[in-house]
Amino acid sequence: MSGDQSRVRAVFEGVKAAGRNVLTAPEAREVCEAYGLPVPKEGLARSIEEAVRVARNIGFPVAVKIVSPDIVHKTEAGGVQLGLNNTREVRQAYRTITANAWNYQFDARITGVQVQQMVTGGSEVIVGMIRDPAFGPVVMFGLGGVFVETLQDTTFRLAPTTSTEALQMLDDIRGAALLRGVRGLPAADRQALAALIVKVSQLAADFPEVSEIDLNPVMASASGAIVVDARFVVDAAVQPQPPRPQAWEMRAAMRRILMPDAIAVIGASPEAGKIGYAVMENIINGGYQGQLYPINPRADVILGRPCYRSVKDIPGPVDIAIFCIPARFVAQVLEECGEKGVRGAVLIPSGFAEVGEAQLQQEVVDVARNHNIRLMGPNIYGFYYTPQNLCATFCTPYNERGSVALTSQSGGVGMAIIGFSRSNKMGVSAIIGLGNKSDIDEDDLLTFFEEDPNTQVIAMHVEDLKDGRAFAEVAQRVTRQKPVVVLKAGRTDMGARAAKSHTGALAGNDRIYEGVLRQAGVIRARHLNEMLEFAKALQMLPTPKGENVLIVTGAGGSGVLLSDACVDHGLRLMSMPPDLDQAFRQFIPPFGAAGNPVDITGGEPPETYRKTINLALYEPRVHALILGYWHTIITPPMTFANLLVDVVEEARRQGIDKPVVASLVGDVAVEVAARHLQDHRILAYPYETEKPVAGLGAKYRWARNAGLLSPVGGFDS
Amino acid sequence: MSGDQSRVRAVFEGVKAAGRNVLTAPEAREVCEAYGLPVPKEGLARSIEEAVRVARNIGFPVAVKIVSPDIVHKTEAGGVQLGLNNTREVRQAYRTITANAWNYQFDARITGVQVQQMVTGGSEVIVGMIRDPAFGPVVMFGLGGVFVETLQDTTFRLAPTTSTEALQMLDDIRGAALLRGVRGLPAADRQALAALIVKVSQLAADFPEVSEIDLNPVMASASGAIVVDARFVVDAAVQPQPPRPQAWEMRAAMRRILMPDAIAVIGASPEAGKIGYAVMENIINGGYQGQLYPINPRADVILGRPCYRSVKDIPGPVDIAIFCIPARFVAQVLEECGEKGVRGAVLIPSGFAEVGEAQLQQEVVDVARNHNIRLMGPNIYGFYYTPQNLCATFCTPYNERGSVALTSQSGGVGMAIIGFSRSNKMGVSAIIGLGNKSDIDEDDLLTFFEEDPNTQVIAMHVEDLKDGRAFAEVAQRVTRQKPVVVLKAGRTDMGARAAKSHTGALAGNDRIYEGVLRQAGVIRARHLNEMLEFAKALQMLPTPKGENVLIVTGAGGSGVLLSDACVDHGLRLMSMPPDLDQAFRQFIPPFGAAGNPVDITGGEPPETYRKTINLALYEPRVHALILGYWHTIITPPMTFANLLVDVVEEARRQGIDKPVVASLVGDVAVEVAARHLQDHRILAYPYETEKPVAGLGAKYRWARNAGLLSPVGGFDS
Repeated sequence: MSGDQSRVRAVFEGVKAAGRNVLTAPEAREVCEAYGLPVPKEGLARSIEEAVRVARNIGFPVAVKIVSPDIVHKTEAGGVQLGLNNTREVRQAYRTITANAWNYQFDARITGVQVQQMVTGGSEVIVGMIRDPAFGPVVMFGLGGVFVETLQDTTFRLAPTTSTEALQMLDDIRGAALLRGVRGLPAADRQALAALIVKVSQLAADFPEVSEIDLNPVMASASGAIVVDARFVVDAAVQPQPPRPQAWEMRAAMRRILMPDAIAVIGASPEAGKIGYAVMENIINGGYQGQLYPINPRADVILGRPCYRSVKDIPGPVDIAIFCIPARFVAQVLEECGEKGVRGAVLIPSGFAEVGEAQLQQEVVDVARNHNIRLMGPNIYGFYYTPQNLCATFCTPYNERGSVALTSQSGGVGMAIIGFSRSNKMGVSAIIGLGNKSDIDEDDLLTFFEEDPNTQVIAMHVEDLKDGRAFAEVAQRVTRQKPVVVLKAGRTDMGARAAKSHTGALAGNDRIYEGVLRQAGVIRARHLNEMLEFAKALQMLPTPKGENVLIVTGAGGSGVLLSDACVDHGLRLMSMPPDLDQAFRQFIPPFGAAGNPVDITGGEPPETYRKTINLALYEPRVHALILGYWHTIITPPMTFANLLVDVVEEARRQGIDKPVVASLVGDVAVEVAARHLQDHRILAYPYETEKPVAGLGAKYRWARNAGLLSPVGGFDS
Repeated sequence: MSGDQSRVRAVFEGVKAAGRNVLTAPEAREVCEAYGLPVPKEGLARSIEEAVRVARNIGFPVAVKIVSPDIVHKTEAGGVQLGLNNTREVRQAYRTITANAWNYQFDARITGVQVQQMVTGGSEVIVGMIRDPAFGPVVMFGLGGVFVETLQDTTFRLAPTTSTEALQMLDDIRGAALLRGVRGLPAADRQALAALIVKVSQLAADFPEVSEIDLNPVMASASGAIVVDARFVVDAAVQPQPPRPQAWEMRAAMRRILMPDAIAVIGASPEAGKIGYAVMENIINGGYQGQLYPINPRADVILGRPCYRSVKDIPGPVDIAIFCIPARFVAQVLEECGEKGVRGAVLIPSGFAEVGEAQLQQEVVDVARNHNIRLMGPNIYGFYYTPQNLCATFCTPYNERGSVALTSQSGGVGMAIIGFSRSNKMGVSAIIGLGNKSDIDEDDLLTFFEEDPNTQVIAMHVEDLKDGRAFAEVAQRVTRQKPVVVLKAGRTDMGARAAKSHTGALAGNDRIYEGVLRQAGVIRARHLNEMLEFAKALQMLPTPKGENVLIVTGAGGSGVLLSDACVDHGLRLMSMPPDLDQAFRQFIPPFGAAGNPVDITGGEPPETYRKTINLALYEPRVHALILGYWHTIITPPMTFANLLVDVVEEARRQGIDKPVVASLVGDVAVEVAARHLQDHRILAYPYETEKPVAGLGAKYRWARNAGLLSPVGGFDS
């Protein structure tokens, strides 16, 4: 795919040699041509008559632009004239723009005038690139011209991008319809646009010294995509990529920490109320079966376990040490751990970088590096790994086993994870605090969970990513197998950024996160509760086999609200085949409504719910079921809940396991009914028409991205 | 404000006389000029030489357009040429477009050619008008040109609009920044654009026969707004406005129904399990103190009350009759009610229009009209009006008194209202089912609640509005005094609409609802739970005195998420004055963060929460408080909840009542703590960073719209 690298290298070397960092128009053109980025026909003219000759060769209309190493903003300098239709106009324009240029800067060196084919027709779009501190090179696509700044209708992806990803970018912007053709304007050549994006991303990958690219406008039309103006910024100070550990190394380290055979608790305490006591108690009461060594020079036995003065006194090997001592002692004791051969440390104490003690934290990290110890924390509540019955934390033990792994950067959010999970009986495999992330971060955890058979869903609270690119690359692989939910905190903090290009100005942190997380197939949660609910839904619901969603409702009013929610969450209401419509009509009153939603009406007995739900469950053209229950005397809440559990579980025994979600409207008894349904893997909520559909929507988003559903093929088939 | 109506009337009469319904360009121009809508300089030419003369008078560049009563789509017919720079080009263009026109339609009558000033510079916008079946004339504003269809970036308001409303429309579109000026493009003349919108809305109000208007494009620039192309559609068949009752009539009727002295229950039953029994039982057990007459020809006494064969046998007067008999008997018994002088009927039975029995329903409506009886329903659960201890419903009695009135069009949604309200101990004044809305609808209720001293917040579930305009006009008045929340179901059903204009094509039902509800100051809920939570928050929270919102948090992680939520919900985080910052720093650890959020850090005792919250409560520059609590051993959930209730209630005793909302993260104990806080008018949620902020945001939206907060004046002052 790469272009002519040597031509580009020559340009960049010339620019650097001249002490500049922005390419002139001819230089930019040279780079475009070398990489096959289509540009208008053009020629450099050093005299009026040469300009006329060039214009005749190109064909009218043409534009003329001043070429000067001293003038960056040509338009501002009056150095551009457009739409010249004949030789007279070209002559006049040549005189005008050179005069303007000298007016603008009296000593400007003028190389000449660029005569350029005027590209008419098509839509103005922008293709850009910027190097982000966390994500490295990212490409941007959006509406161009005056709309770049006004509508900020842009989308980002990690560079290099594939052609498929580039095509998705075209659909990602709000103005996507523009490219599909609107009245009076034919559809743009999507392949040509995608190819342009891919080439820009390749250029960024090949030349780390390119820091920003703006192709703006690019005229996108039915006959292709032409770069009308290009801006390249080069930066001599190239940041080296940080080294990354191999995936197997990460997994081995995480396995040692989460599945240890022997644990030392540094600062174990015999005193209830102390963190060093709580950790010991939780590990023991949680049911951990490995070796457990309390370390405390001033105690003999803690909670029935013999105590050691130092890890070095422990007779057998030790996998991990859990630190419950003040920050200032950590480095010293970690040194001993290193000497003992401990390879993982869980640093509960706070008092490090989060309170400005960056130096103290660095000392700990240095000791760890010397001894090849991986660090979790500091400043964390610890972790839970339920397959090992391991509660290495000062919080209370957690005992709902399941397949959701949750991580949080903040302790408070971690506590909310514990409370919500317990209250919702959400089965978890792991809950892990990352705190200051002095070493272990989201990459390590994702990489471990990827192959952890105990984990099927991963949900992460993230405040910042040290290496966003590494995270995205791992996530892109993991999400093909297991759903990953990310709550990115601080998304509205756009953070000012010095930028020399449109692309730079538009690359607010959150815009890049948005595009890259999408590219990685991550399901993004907008707030804390949504992350938790998505995790619950993703674990609870089986993967649908196709796009056909059916609503069966006892309350017409709920049916409308549930349909609204389906549209909001990208679900496709199945268009009802006539034979199936007929089948439903057999079970519902004549004034009920078949179609979708199937409205069985409010006065019906349990049998009507049973028959219609059964029909939907065993009908292979229906792939997911949304139920709208209405509390009535004839079918009270628990009657409905029991019958629904009955029919769904019977279907599961027959090997039919479709996602079933339910909205229960009624008096307070629906709360108990909803809990009963959730206990049986039916995602149900009282007084809610949004959450059941949002949960199903999350499952669909993941399944589509993982390629488990063809976007069209599965629909209505 | 109105323009020259007689000129416009003459044009429309000419169009009608010609049997057309679309104005020609000269006719459209005449209308524009009569109403002061600025148009480009222009002249009609009937020959080539005349075209040249006109062009010279106007000045180049010019455009030429074919004028023919037979050609509506001029561009399609090749009847337009733009950007003509000299007389030669004008001559050539004249020949081309007349030839094209005849090619397009060989017998087209050609009046001549319009020569028009080319308006260059500025942004293309669209101003339009359409007559909606529910809302009547509405005006539209949006981005114009090719973006009209692509981005659909438009907003609607009821016509006529005020200048203030028109200015708000300019800010309502996503591309609003375009009009404020972007690089290379000066800000548009907002007053000129607003004036244009107002004039269009006035034209629509003055001439009911104008059914659609498209001014597209309008070139908006620093020097004004010029209508480059205008399209008017007239429709001879003008719909007459339905007559509306006076507000005092509505209130009197509603007062009689909701606050009756004597009630007859038609179809009262001695048999438990029957609706006629449940209604009697609920009225009695609910504590209703007025007269209650069961009507049943086959019983003597029901629940201790003497029974009558017919309402006509009742000795005293009767205000309302509650119907618990099958649909087919309703009309006949209603007739008797009319004869008895009953003036309100609550029709619980279903079996009317909702099951296709529109005729049966019409018969009932006719009887009611004859006897001047107002009807609630049919097909409803009844109503609750707690100030009268009146539970006129077959559901269970409701006993949490308060100031929220809730209404629903659907029974299922009504049941959810009852369940949620009961579970959340939300005090209500009324819960009312509207069902088929054969007579009483949202207007009547809004008008009653407007002056009902027992009601302070109104929340309505709406599927359709029979008379959207009437509703919006009442709502606009009511929302100045009391918050109104509307859940509009079916918002994603855009409903195809035959339209002769862009404006028509873009006027999907929901777009109009969105704009008009905003214009009316209504707080729109997106789903069921949001409507219920908004109602709760609006009742619970006092009105803030200014825009300064402060976050105090024990969990830095929650602080970030709460800040995100503030941005999402339009809340303004106070920028911390140095003296206040200093004051907070006295109470928090040195590594905590003052500023906003104030991060007191996680290890602090109850005293730190108490001192910082007190500081915020008594500081007059802080207008609302968001708390982020983190569950720790040092400050357990109930300790926090109790201290918060203490300090807030003490402040209330001192006359300081600010909105206080809280996000509680922690283990399951935070659920109990949150409930305790809610019981004391502190809006608190466990595991949620969104809902407390969303609730506060709803209160702010209402307060701003009601003029209780100046949008800037109250900020940081």
